[in-house]
Amino acid sequence: MSSITHTVAESYPMNGGDDPYSYARNSLFQRTAASAAKTVIDDAIAEKLDLEKIRSASDSTFRVADMGCSVGPNTFIAMQNIINAVQHKYQSQGLASHVPEFHVFFSDHASNDFNTLFTSLPPERPYFAAGVPGSFYGRLFPESSLHFVHASYALHFLSEVPAELLNKNSPAWNKGRIHYSGAPNDVARAYTAQFSRDISTFLDARAEEVTVGGMMVLIIPAIPDGIPHSCVPGGVLFDFLGLSLMDMAKEGLISEAEVDSFNMPLYATSAREMTELVAKNGRFSIDRMEMTAARSIMDGNPISGQACTMHLRAVVAGIISKHFGAEIIDELFDRFYKKTEEFSDQLESMYEKGTQICIVLKRI
Amino acid sequence: MSSITHTVAESYPMNGGDDPYSYARNSLFQRTAASAAKTVIDDAIAEKLDLEKIRSASDSTFRVADMGCSVGPNTFIAMQNIINAVQHKYQSQGLASHVPEFHVFFSDHASNDFNTLFTSLPPERPYFAAGVPGSFYGRLFPESSLHFVHASYALHFLSEVPAELLNKNSPAWNKGRIHYSGAPNDVARAYTAQFSRDISTFLDARAEEVTVGGMMVLIIPAIPDGIPHSCVPGGVLFDFLGLSLMDMAKEGLISEAEVDSFNMPLYATSAREMTELVAKNGRFSIDRMEMTAARSIMDGNPISGQACTMHLRAVVAGIISKHFGAEIIDELFDRFYKKTEEFSDQLESMYEKGTQICIVLKRI
Repeated sequence: MSSITHTVAESYPMNGGDDPYSYARNSLFQRTAASAAKTVIDDAIAEKLDLEKIRSASDSTFRVADMGCSVGPNTFIAMQNIINAVQHKYQSQGLASHVPEFHVFFSDHASNDFNTLFTSLPPERPYFAAGVPGSFYGRLFPESSLHFVHASYALHFLSEVPAELLNKNSPAWNKGRIHYSGAPNDVARAYTAQFSRDISTFLDARAEEVTVGGMMVLIIPAIPDGIPHSCVPGGVLFDFLGLSLMDMAKEGLISEAEVDSFNMPLYATSAREMTELVAKNGRFSIDRMEMTAARSIMDGNPISGQACTMHLRAVVAGIISKHFGAEIIDELFDRFYKKTEEFSDQLESMYEKGTQICIVLKRI
Repeated sequence: MSSITHTVAESYPMNGGDDPYSYARNSLFQRTAASAAKTVIDDAIAEKLDLEKIRSASDSTFRVADMGCSVGPNTFIAMQNIINAVQHKYQSQGLASHVPEFHVFFSDHASNDFNTLFTSLPPERPYFAAGVPGSFYGRLFPESSLHFVHASYALHFLSEVPAELLNKNSPAWNKGRIHYSGAPNDVARAYTAQFSRDISTFLDARAEEVTVGGMMVLIIPAIPDGIPHSCVPGGVLFDFLGLSLMDMAKEGLISEAEVDSFNMPLYATSAREMTELVAKNGRFSIDRMEMTAARSIMDGNPISGQACTMHLRAVVAGIISKHFGAEIIDELFDRFYKKTEEFSDQLESMYEKGTQICIVLKRI
């Protein structure tokens, strides 16, 4: 290995720090979503993880990576759950004295707020912690060095906005919109092709890094099979955001060309699409695929415009600031909030139809 | 392993960021000092590193840790040198096809500016990078997981100021001074005892983490054997700093009690002392110990008060701000600078008598 290609993908850090708009304080949805995946992870480890294979293939440390970890606290909860499940498996097999030491790698873009992540690590953790900066659309770890990879609400971020969307001469030029929601099919197709390239790159890199027998759990916002991509349920949020931006453009607060050249690098996949992409890669088997309705993740709580606004702001304020400047954020989300109040029935239907996929993969 | 004790030692982060007072821009001395150690490291790897032993003891990744890495760029240079030397050794033994992948762990306190470190990683690096937050006076890595440990200008930071210095009823009460330089023997003895405890803790932790046959290179500012500790040559800087603080106390800008209760957690060891502490630990052999005069590190350049001031400020501004508040820093270092100009002959003698030790240890 003379030099490693360190992929420089676009990065979209969640809001750092710990203020009222921070991701650390506005990531309850992702946390609830992850807890829906907990049972799937527990079962996968209990039933499918081959301790013998893993132990013989490597040294005595069990290495777990969370890819797209952001700043916590969700990543700490997820890592603790995985370790509990692995410890439990050793104990239930009468191998309590063989429980390995755990090394947990928290990975995200170099622009992620690792300072906040590191200072908020749980003091009583049963693992050694490390941070790994870089894009998961490229190699991050040595060959066969990982035993378990977790990525929750991370793979729906594309590595970049497909170039066609910005080309005025392309049928995929996305004028006046910021997403493929409600857009012509050419726009959705460009997003789909980008997602396909990105997931292939992700799986290629992980196939090198995950030891044979090792597992990977991916939790990804998705749409049910059969819904056309241009009707993605969560798209209503991007419709509201796009409309708010266009309103601001009409009032001269920003330029329309700025809106035309901006697109959200977010995509919702489907079970069928993920199955095909995993098969195409060919180095992982799908041990399990679980769909969870977004409505059930909300646990019966009413959908409020306020909650949606705070949630979306923590996730996308960074992306928007990078393009339009940080000074428009307060105004934009005021307008966005009003739209969520006006059209709250559309929010309900988004959660009714939306879903997430939890996929358990095993390196073969 | 149900839970790991994560040591919470006092942390003294170097100035972060990239401004004129940052460590990133004011660490030339440490860089030159490290380059004096480069030959020692190159030779140690070429002659003493047992590739067979290391390969059989673990998996196919070669893991290097820099402990007390700060924010770069020195750590990047040091890690690159080590990897070059290991690659060279594989090639010179006809094992070019067996060159392992390298995983480099940049470790420092959680309060270190890892965000700056991560965004300034060399884009063309021949290794996978990770950051490890925590005190090296405690475990940071899984058992037998490291092959090479490097710590340059890090181990002279004590884990804490010895408690006796703050006790008015102790003969080691360090009234009106901020260091053991020029202090009664009881003060120096308290520092020595603290250093001894700290190095023992460091070696105990590393003995667990470094695989048998693995190496450790420590570069530590030191004094020649035979000089009493209270006459530590670098102490002149702390004398100037202490005098500047006392001047400010006399003018009422800070209180004298604040100066009495402040002590620099820095210590200069000697070759004899390090030899004894390594022997006491018993799990490393000393492969080589090299002394380098500080004057020779300066490469014939004149010692300027300006350079000393910028250098010391980048290293200790954080410690001082924590105790006295950040608002005194500019004033304090103005006064410090004037003293270095007044007594520049003492600076010369500091570099004449000062030295650093480079110790190559091997895990037995």
